[in-house]
Amino acid sequence: MPRYTAPVRDTRFIIEKVIGLDRYAELPAFATASPEIVNAVLDEGGKFVAEQLFPLNQSGDQQGCKRNDDGSVTTPEGFKEAYKAFVEGGWMTLGAPEEFGGQNMPHIVSTAFEEYLISANMAFAMYPGLTKGAVAALLAHGSQELKEKYLPKMVSGEWTGTMNLTEPQCGTDLGLIKTKAEPQADGSYEITGTKIFISAGEHDMADNIIHLVLAKTPGAPDSSKGISLFVVPKFLVNDDGSIGERNGVSCGSIEHKMGIHGNATCVLNYDGAKGWLVGEEMKGLAAMFVMMNAARLGVGLQGLGIAEVAFQNAVQYANDRRQGRALTGPKDPEEKADTLFVHPDVRRMLMESKAQIEGLRALCLWGGLQVDLSHDAGDEEARELADDLVGLLTPVIKGYGTDLGYKVATDCQQVYGGHGYIAEWGMEQYVRDARIAMIYEGTNGVQAMDLVGRKLARKGGRAVQAFFKQVAGEIAEAKKDEKLAEFAGKLEKALGDMQASTMWLAANGMKNPNDAGAAAYPFMEMTGVVAIGLMWLRMATAAQGSLGEDGADTKFLETKLVTARYYADRILPRTASLRAQVEAGSDSIMALEPEAFEAA
Amino acid sequence: MPRYTAPVRDTRFIIEKVIGLDRYAELPAFATASPEIVNAVLDEGGKFVAEQLFPLNQSGDQQGCKRNDDGSVTTPEGFKEAYKAFVEGGWMTLGAPEEFGGQNMPHIVSTAFEEYLISANMAFAMYPGLTKGAVAALLAHGSQELKEKYLPKMVSGEWTGTMNLTEPQCGTDLGLIKTKAEPQADGSYEITGTKIFISAGEHDMADNIIHLVLAKTPGAPDSSKGISLFVVPKFLVNDDGSIGERNGVSCGSIEHKMGIHGNATCVLNYDGAKGWLVGEEMKGLAAMFVMMNAARLGVGLQGLGIAEVAFQNAVQYANDRRQGRALTGPKDPEEKADTLFVHPDVRRMLMESKAQIEGLRALCLWGGLQVDLSHDAGDEEARELADDLVGLLTPVIKGYGTDLGYKVATDCQQVYGGHGYIAEWGMEQYVRDARIAMIYEGTNGVQAMDLVGRKLARKGGRAVQAFFKQVAGEIAEAKKDEKLAEFAGKLEKALGDMQASTMWLAANGMKNPNDAGAAAYPFMEMTGVVAIGLMWLRMATAAQGSLGEDGADTKFLETKLVTARYYADRILPRTASLRAQVEAGSDSIMALEPEAFEAA
Repeated sequence: MPRYTAPVRDTRFIIEKVIGLDRYAELPAFATASPEIVNAVLDEGGKFVAEQLFPLNQSGDQQGCKRNDDGSVTTPEGFKEAYKAFVEGGWMTLGAPEEFGGQNMPHIVSTAFEEYLISANMAFAMYPGLTKGAVAALLAHGSQELKEKYLPKMVSGEWTGTMNLTEPQCGTDLGLIKTKAEPQADGSYEITGTKIFISAGEHDMADNIIHLVLAKTPGAPDSSKGISLFVVPKFLVNDDGSIGERNGVSCGSIEHKMGIHGNATCVLNYDGAKGWLVGEEMKGLAAMFVMMNAARLGVGLQGLGIAEVAFQNAVQYANDRRQGRALTGPKDPEEKADTLFVHPDVRRMLMESKAQIEGLRALCLWGGLQVDLSHDAGDEEARELADDLVGLLTPVIKGYGTDLGYKVATDCQQVYGGHGYIAEWGMEQYVRDARIAMIYEGTNGVQAMDLVGRKLARKGGRAVQAFFKQVAGEIAEAKKDEKLAEFAGKLEKALGDMQASTMWLAANGMKNPNDAGAAAYPFMEMTGVVAIGLMWLRMATAAQGSLGEDGADTKFLETKLVTARYYADRILPRTASLRAQVEAGSDSIMALEPEAFEAA
Repeated sequence: MPRYTAPVRDTRFIIEKVIGLDRYAELPAFATASPEIVNAVLDEGGKFVAEQLFPLNQSGDQQGCKRNDDGSVTTPEGFKEAYKAFVEGGWMTLGAPEEFGGQNMPHIVSTAFEEYLISANMAFAMYPGLTKGAVAALLAHGSQELKEKYLPKMVSGEWTGTMNLTEPQCGTDLGLIKTKAEPQADGSYEITGTKIFISAGEHDMADNIIHLVLAKTPGAPDSSKGISLFVVPKFLVNDDGSIGERNGVSCGSIEHKMGIHGNATCVLNYDGAKGWLVGEEMKGLAAMFVMMNAARLGVGLQGLGIAEVAFQNAVQYANDRRQGRALTGPKDPEEKADTLFVHPDVRRMLMESKAQIEGLRALCLWGGLQVDLSHDAGDEEARELADDLVGLLTPVIKGYGTDLGYKVATDCQQVYGGHGYIAEWGMEQYVRDARIAMIYEGTNGVQAMDLVGRKLARKGGRAVQAFFKQVAGEIAEAKKDEKLAEFAGKLEKALGDMQASTMWLAANGMKNPNDAGAAAYPFMEMTGVVAIGLMWLRMATAAQGSLGEDGADTKFLETKLVTARYYADRILPRTASLRAQVEAGSDSIMALEPEAFEAA
């Protein structure tokens, strides 16, 4: 019953009119991304996921993954065939380097496609998503030998990848890892230990699974400084590239969880499995962070992707379902009731969702662009700026973006009334699926701490100052245009709240680290409000600028302007109370002892 | 693995110190509620639900209800036996009138107990909860004959009750009801139609189920003005009170839903079932509203109950789980890591939950008190004031209270990190269960419209003015006490936002009803923030006043004061941005046509 259409028109508007991809055409990273190719990727990719993957989303949730007695895992009906089509269509290779069989497309383009992929089927999207992260880690830190051995088949998607960090006793605090890696005479290691919550850890869709595993070598410090990263294939790979014998890693069980049932979340038991060091010994955390940062942007996209598909369905329901009358008098007097769409509170939920989704989409695409520019911008200064922005925005896109995903999914479920709670309508699945994105790849609280504890302070606050400069500059420019001045004024106020909060953090966070910790979450949210506010300023500017053009989609552009006004009226003012929360400090948060929280 | 202890200490503090139940001892409604009896109810009731019902909560979710081929429904293992114990313990009869076998306890006491019942097992609590609503409707509108026939066994709990409003084509808009009631020669009616989403609609726990059903008599207007209310027993009841033949109502299917799996949500088919009119013909909606208003307060309690049990578990996990180090240096250097409890962002979630839960508990109990006073206060003026406050607060307790329940459950799940997403830990169930409370008994958007569209304007705004007067009076009093002045000042600011928003609504809502509709939700939230703020002012005042007393629980009282400070620092300031949302009007919300929401 649910539906999905890739929002290609909006993606194109952002890429072409807001970001103006053609401005970067001369950079090597964008050589493959001509407008024709980008449009083909969006159109065909959108069609592929809507036709092949979306129909498996609900059945995948209902069936879930099944661990068989021999430890193998069967994915839901149709997943295996759809994955084959996905690989054959080359969709896995979009952003990967040509050297290993990739299409070398810039991040901004693969980001656009991945949003669609997630909307269509988040549980499915995680299989290639984790592979992509593993590829990134091997690319950045693997030896040439390891790269040549594993990357071609991972880039093509014939083999999938995983990230193995968590153990029963350790999640966020990776220093507590117990998995051991014993060096062998042949240069390999024997890996022994138990990993939990391993997404896509075992399944029947690919010929091999390449696990990237954090473990400790003998004598390594018992802290995060003693961690090394290993590649551990499910099947050993012979020198000729063919599949060899089964390695000592097996799926002990799969978790029963709230959502993403189509993805196998495994307990993996390593029992003297053969592994090879990736990068340097005891530098595993840094290597894993490459993977995690890519993954965090990908998880932020999950917030966006789920929000979009939930929204599309809520819109349809609001137009189909008739209940009650418009407050201003019957809209459709010939019918027994008007559509839900006439009710201001239903419209509030739809407008809120629309404004957050389109703003978040622009932010994710802009984030993708910064990743590209951080590698390939023309000069060092521009590369540094882009790298600073990626660092600053990653925890915001992940943390704030996934909070929005859950909020939008919940609101869109609310539009359905009682039917929203019933499985067959599909909306409750979106809420359950969206929920995990706030938790994994570092909880959103961890993202907030990353933002406030690391990213703000890095290099003397260079990143946040650059961000402020950019926002303030664009506000000043917009204020000259009477059609944008009101929006710019409201964004300026929000920016002022964020700047004041940053000052407050600078003044208090060092003296009392708990003040920084207590302020982190509202600060992250405020940064999200301002960053998406900047996106809306840009979208409004672009829409205003395009209105007179030949062949302009006037209705679409006017809709952008209305939605920007909604953002300015109803969302930007939220920074005021977030600032009050930041400035409240940590006293009342940290005052109580554990006993004070007991019921009796 | 989850745990639950009834928070009797906090309930007693509110009843004894904040509300001061002894002040009402002379009123007939409170004759049965001596401190000894109230404490016995809380202690024994808390123990009963924790020991008998809580252990069935998780298994009930996992097993769910099953419809058998003959249309009967089997509840999860243990439910039937537990329900028998519940009835035998007399827990059903607490608030019911003595005339029909009840204990005549005031609402405030049954409210306190029902919170515990919900915390222990929300799906179970719905069976007696719906019975209670059906009892209320029969008491208010049933003939003496109907009362005598049905009430004794419903009050005891031997028979359960249901509310039958929704049909496939009609939820909020009851005017669309199609179910027909044909009058018969013997004074009964034949009821024919399909009802959906009927909670506790069919099950194996009671000898009979008494359905209260909305239907239309021949020739009745095809609108909400044509609706009548009927009582339709599952089994006809003979004149001697014994169970007679099966009536023509059957369960067609049970819904697969997001949560509350232990409660059977049924499609009920009425096929010429025998029913009897409750109250007057075509006055069914008014009669049903008695039931719905009671039910709405009960649903608000579901927000509280789920929040409390989720919170207790998050506290335990935060104390048990070790991960990372305190920002201010290791707290437990002898351990490999500190507990989650040391992290300010974890503490933020716990403090936020604590402040909202305890405030909401006070509000629910105060609401229960107002229900009592609306019937039994000494003079007409006091009864009217209480009735006004019940009217004003009911949509807030339901709408804002259940939003808080979902938010707290989500935050407490978040404390668990990855384990929060795994079914066996129990936290994800709380989120799924909490979600329905925002939807049923009128969605929270409907509550907001009820508040703004009906309750604000009623009798020239008398209720909200009385509320303002009460809050302002207590602020003025508190400002004289230097220990309370800061809190009072912040509450005053929040009250000012609410007053300004009310003025804005008065000035704009009549001219443009869509402005009222667009403002309704943030206005409801703001009212919730202020109402719970008033509760915290009272709790802080009571705590301050009790600190010096003999035998005072000093730690508990000091904890109250810290939590009040948290509320003032971090929650009260939220009214500023809610006010901005109210005052933004409806222009940007209502400007777009349906087409503007389409993806392509």
